Amino acid sequence: MSKPLTTALAQFTAATAGRNMTKAAYVAVTAGVLSMVLLTDRRADEAHKWVSGLLWTCLAYFVFEWLVRLRHMARQGRLSLYVSSSAGLVDAIGALSVPVALLLGAEPRTAWLLSVLWVLKVVPGIPGLRQLRRVLVLESGPLLSVLVIFLMVVFLASVAEYFLERDVQPQTFGSVPAALWWAVVTLTTTGYGDAVPVTPLGRLVAAAVMISGLGVFGLWTGILATGFAAETRRDNFLRTWEAVSKVPFFAALGPSAIADVTHMLRTMELPARTLVIRKGAQGDCMYFIAAGEVEVDLPGKKVQLGEGAFFGEMALLGNNMRGANVSTTKVSRLLVLDLVDFRVLMARHPDLAETIDAEAKRRALENR
Amino acid sequence: MSKPLTTALAQFTAATAGRNMTKAAYVAVTAGVLSMVLLTDRRADEAHKWVSGLLWTCLAYFVFEWLVRLRHMARQGRLSLYVSSSAGLVDAIGALSVPVALLLGAEPRTAWLLSVLWVLKVVPGIPGLRQLRRVLVLESGPLLSVLVIFLMVVFLASVAEYFLERDVQPQTFGSVPAALWWAVVTLTTTGYGDAVPVTPLGRLVAAAVMISGLGVFGLWTGILATGFAAETRRDNFLRTWEAVSKVPFFAALGPSAIADVTHMLRTMELPARTLVIRKGAQGDCMYFIAAGEVEVDLPGKKVQLGEGAFFGEMALLGNNMRGANVSTTKVSRLLVLDLVDFRVLMARHPDLAETIDAEAKRRALENR
Amino acid sequence: MSKPLTTALAQFTAATAGRNMTKAAYVAVTAGVLSMVLLTDRRADEAHKWVSGLLWTCLAYFVFEWLVRLRHMARQGRLSLYVSSSAGLVDAIGALSVPVALLLGAEPRTAWLLSVLWVLKVVPGIPGLRQLRRVLVLESGPLLSVLVIFLMVVFLASVAEYFLERDVQPQTFGSVPAALWWAVVTLTTTGYGDAVPVTPLGRLVAAAVMISGLGVFGLWTGILATGFAAETRRDNFLRTWEAVSKVPFFAALGPSAIADVTHMLRTMELPARTLVIRKGAQGDCMYFIAAGEVEVDLPGKKVQLGEGAFFGEMALLGNNMRGANVSTTKVSRLLVLDLVDFRVLMARHPDLAETIDAEAKRRALENR
Amino acid sequence: MSKPLTTALAQFTAATAGRNMTKAAYVAVTAGVLSMVLLTDRRADEAHKWVSGLLWTCLAYFVFEWLVRLRHMARQGRLSLYVSSSAGLVDAIGALSVPVALLLGAEPRTAWLLSVLWVLKVVPGIPGLRQLRRVLVLESGPLLSVLVIFLMVVFLASVAEYFLERDVQPQTFGSVPAALWWAVVTLTTTGYGDAVPVTPLGRLVAAAVMISGLGVFGLWTGILATGFAAETRRDNFLRTWEAVSKVPFFAALGPSAIADVTHMLRTMELPARTLVIRKGAQGDCMYFIAAGEVEVDLPGKKVQLGEGAFFGEMALLGNNMRGANVSTTKVSRLLVLDLVDFRVLMARHPDLAETIDAEAKRRALENR
Repeated sequence: MSKPLTTALAQFTAATAGRNMTKAAYVAVTAGVLSMVLLTDRRADEAHKWVSGLLWTCLAYFVFEWLVRLRHMARQGRLSLYVSSSAGLVDAIGALSVPVALLLGAEPRTAWLLSVLWVLKVVPGIPGLRQLRRVLVLESGPLLSVLVIFLMVVFLASVAEYFLERDVQPQTFGSVPAALWWAVVTLTTTGYGDAVPVTPLGRLVAAAVMISGLGVFGLWTGILATGFAAETRRDNFLRTWEAVSKVPFFAALGPSAIADVTHMLRTMELPARTLVIRKGAQGDCMYFIAAGEVEVDLPGKKVQLGEGAFFGEMALLGNNMRGANVSTTKVSRLLVLDLVDFRVLMARHPDLAETIDAEAKRRALENR
Repeated sequence: MSKPLTTALAQFTAATAGRNMTKAAYVAVTAGVLSMVLLTDRRADEAHKWVSGLLWTCLAYFVFEWLVRLRHMARQGRLSLYVSSSAGLVDAIGALSVPVALLLGAEPRTAWLLSVLWVLKVVPGIPGLRQLRRVLVLESGPLLSVLVIFLMVVFLASVAEYFLERDVQPQTFGSVPAALWWAVVTLTTTGYGDAVPVTPLGRLVAAAVMISGLGVFGLWTGILATGFAAETRRDNFLRTWEAVSKVPFFAALGPSAIADVTHMLRTMELPARTLVIRKGAQGDCMYFIAAGEVEVDLPGKKVQLGEGAFFGEMALLGNNMRGANVSTTKVSRLLVLDLVDFRVLMARHPDLAETIDAEAKRRALENR
Repeated sequence: MSKPLTTALAQFTAATAGRNMTKAAYVAVTAGVLSMVLLTDRRADEAHKWVSGLLWTCLAYFVFEWLVRLRHMARQGRLSLYVSSSAGLVDAIGALSVPVALLLGAEPRTAWLLSVLWVLKVVPGIPGLRQLRRVLVLESGPLLSVLVIFLMVVFLASVAEYFLERDVQPQTFGSVPAALWWAVVTLTTTGYGDAVPVTPLGRLVAAAVMISGLGVFGLWTGILATGFAAETRRDNFLRTWEAVSKVPFFAALGPSAIADVTHMLRTMELPARTLVIRKGAQGDCMYFIAAGEVEVDLPGKKVQLGEGAFFGEMALLGNNMRGANVSTTKVSRLLVLDLVDFRVLMARHPDLAETIDAEAKRRALENR
Repeated sequence: MSKPLTTALAQFTAATAGRNMTKAAYVAVTAGVLSMVLLTDRRADEAHKWVSGLLWTCLAYFVFEWLVRLRHMARQGRLSLYVSSSAGLVDAIGALSVPVALLLGAEPRTAWLLSVLWVLKVVPGIPGLRQLRRVLVLESGPLLSVLVIFLMVVFLASVAEYFLERDVQPQTFGSVPAALWWAVVTLTTTGYGDAVPVTPLGRLVAAAVMISGLGVFGLWTGILATGFAAETRRDNFLRTWEAVSKVPFFAALGPSAIADVTHMLRTMELPARTLVIRKGAQGDCMYFIAAGEVEVDLPGKKVQLGEGAFFGEMALLGNNMRGANVSTTKVSRLLVLDLVDFRVLMARHPDLAETIDAEAKRRALENR
């Protein structure tokens, strides 16, 4: 193999080993799952050969990925940890399920269905998943209660409906399992219409079940909304706290005031070369640079602002129209202070107000 | 053309150029879209000619509007900005899509279908849209997570259902795309009933999907409710702050107290000649005039109150029944202070309480 | 007519004139509407005569009610106010709609259908309606935005679906109005299944519409939940404030502390002879009597407590088990203080804690 | 009977009498209800004998349970209290309903259907039920309003739909009761599709009903979410307050500060031998031991921490990675302090910060 190819392969291998999801993995998951879907469609039979090839390629990639990670972990002495971790399990399932099914003599079309398990690889990459999981864990008590209530309504209603409808519709309500199917379809307000009560009493029971369905739904949503509100506040505080303590502007504040300020700020992660402020737009917030760098595009010159600097304060000091384009030059983390909170902050900490005011005046003079 | 007609046209042109949506535009959008709907209904064939005429008129208006705006923007040197803006794009689509389709040889009935795009013109006029968009942007992380979870459930469930049902119902579950359709219809709890699992295992999977549907729904709603609550507080604060700082009554307060007061007030924009207070009604709030003018209809005389004045304070000082009709004489912006907040405010700022009390006594004496 | 009968009639007339809904009116509405429902059922034809008689009786009652109110209002010189008020309109509609329909020659079965309008009489009696209406009014901006978005999605989707499905299913998607029906049924996630897209592209559009349906739903709910939370806080404060200021126990507190206390209390309206505390139950709140009277059922004697007194404080001072039955002797308004808030209150206002403690000790000694 | 068997029976009897739900009861409910479901399925006819036997066993257990409890309560002189309590009623129904039905001559298959009532026994064991019930009681006013609005829409819509559709579809809209069925199915957005309006006006009414359905749903959810948020805060405070006051670490704080701290902590009940902290994991909270004991697995030695001690504080003092495994040795109640709240707490009560800091340093030295 030629040198550059070897190097590229080495880089690719390193990237695969180190991170959970590379871009290649996303492409492979998408292409693989879509190919599997196509493979089951009789209308796409003529493309069968190509689709099949694509599937084998994806599988090869996942096997390669798994082996690379196994070697990488073995070298670091974390092999058993990796194999028993959920990521390791998902990797193993992705690499082995289809080959094992083929070896066990499953029909190829059926064996390839297992490639749908590749979507599980996406899970760790979902941005807000940790937050969602925390909500589900913290609220598991009430959520479980609602589930038990759901099941009780389902059982009671399906026995009642079976009793009332079995003679009239032996086909659809001829046993309690059949009535259970009706109850779930109704209580979730899905309502396929394949099983519908026809006797007056049966319909009364069904109406009660539907209205209970709204109630169950409402409780469920209420619980999740409550948990989510608390979690959002907590998550935002955690992410912002780190950043605030690194901005010299806030360093003079005592710890109590910093907690105060943290509640008001919002962090924003931006890639390089992103426009933060568009000249002429309406402005209602200012920015502090927690990490990275931005470039202010003033007439005739470009000014760089680094970590700890702030910009956009003019919009909060009376001049609503943004005066210049500002864009990031590196990956940056900005802290956003809304007009609302700016005013509250200024009222509580007048010294900060003065610092910002002074800097704004200095800049105005300089750019005259 | 006669003079008055020219003037009217000039006024109309100016109005069209300057604002996003004139009343004429609303009429044209409504009439145009309804005509297009009618045009496709075979039962309305005899009215075809009139409907067609109406459509051409609407189209002519939109072309005219677009040209006027192009000229207006060109004169102001903002042509390229306008053309690349979303408003400019919508205007261009509204003016050009139908003619282009006709020129390309599309059947007229089909070409006119494109006039449904005229509804996009309404977007900038939707009152709370900016607020909704901010919520969607700020909560995009969790919302995206839920969407990814939604898609994962859809894919896993449809492959499972395809495997379980394909032999029994080759018509409806004969391929994964068909099963995907079932999964989306079920997970959103829409439940058309065109594809329904019949095997016991298939129904178990379906029940799990329906209950997940409730969960997805609940998460989604919870996220949006949380975001919306934060956004509403923020939006109300912003709108009220401006107004509060213009009311001399609050000028004596320090900035911290103003922030406090702002949280308690609610702005209300009223057209001229609107009844604010009806004599004899129950009252539980008082009003400050941030802009505009109101007229108090006292027995025997009418009193005008201008910017900075307040009224309706009697209701909060023990007399629940409103004593006189009050209506706006101009477009006005009022700040509403609820009884609840009035009491909290009076407790925290006793000096304000005295001012209001003194003024109330003065008025009572005067009107004796 | 004999004397007692005349008196009873006079009393009945007075009650009818003075209040919005008497018990007789509730009975008449329920009986009337149910009779109307029965009248349309062919299976109930043999009971026709009785049902018809009941309907005429209800109608007679509503006509009588309307005439009594008209006379009452005319005597008080408020006739025109009453006639143009919503209550007056509902009364007039209830009394006149059926007779007018019969006079105009409508078939009796059809004319009686109008008696469903009697349910409108229930509206003013709905307990939380004022609160709901305030939420809808205050949040009308965002709710309207969501409605406009809903309509836009409906129009765009139905034109797209009409274009994609009209050739395959001319019966169900043969015109845009038909497709509009499909779009509404789908976007609300009702999903009757009478119109279902079958082309792959049509199904993609439908899937997007269903997911948008979840989004619309979530926004709607989020807005209402936000508004409702604010309104509940406000409403509770208003009702409690009145009561708190009448309890001498809190009189010593300054206005700021009263506002504080008001946020912690909850009012409870109880009819006479209601058990408030059951002996031996777990207790986690104490009560203040804002109006009315309660009776404590101590061993050997019964103690009455009047306005301004408190009870149930033992549960908050360490003894979790309720020591005696307590029931109201009159219609009473109690203020409930939860354990949570009791502790916060005691921490902030130690003097209140001492008063309660001293009284509790005095009672314990007395009852030894 | 041999001695050990008698002892086992006595223990079993004592357990049955004393608690609401023993493990045996859970098994019996599950087995009984599933058997009843199976019994109605014709496909399971060959297993009939076994299923029947299982049902008789479950019934025998519930009769035994009921008798044991009756005796137990009679001995304690609380027989009448137990019989009239909801738990007593459920026990009686569970023990008597099936035998009574069989005695009254009901067909066995039908009589056994009553065994579905056994699921009611699970109710008291549902963890968050008390919380849910409080929400429903406190918000009963608004929830009832929404229910009345729901019923009004149902009645008005079904009469309108009956009037519009009766001639076209006499089968499905031939009477108001039939139209009522349609209205409930539509307003809950269930949409079976067994009754679908076909006239243009009928469809307009139906569209309005569906959109109202979203509104009703939104209101319902909004009310429940609001109530639930308040209840969660209250419930957590109550549970935590008890625990906080038992931790000597917080004893030095005044009552106001304790209320403050209580709002920040979260209680966690853990069984024995549960891993609380995994070495190497990311940490963002610390723990106080309110009851029980934990074991810290340091290299070379194991350290026990008892009631009142705290651990995991390193994660909040700069070192994100957990340094050792920590697991419970007994059933324990821990108080969790999140990083967010830790910082706020430290800012407000610097003395606590010093105590934690000093202890952390002492531990670090000791374990060097």
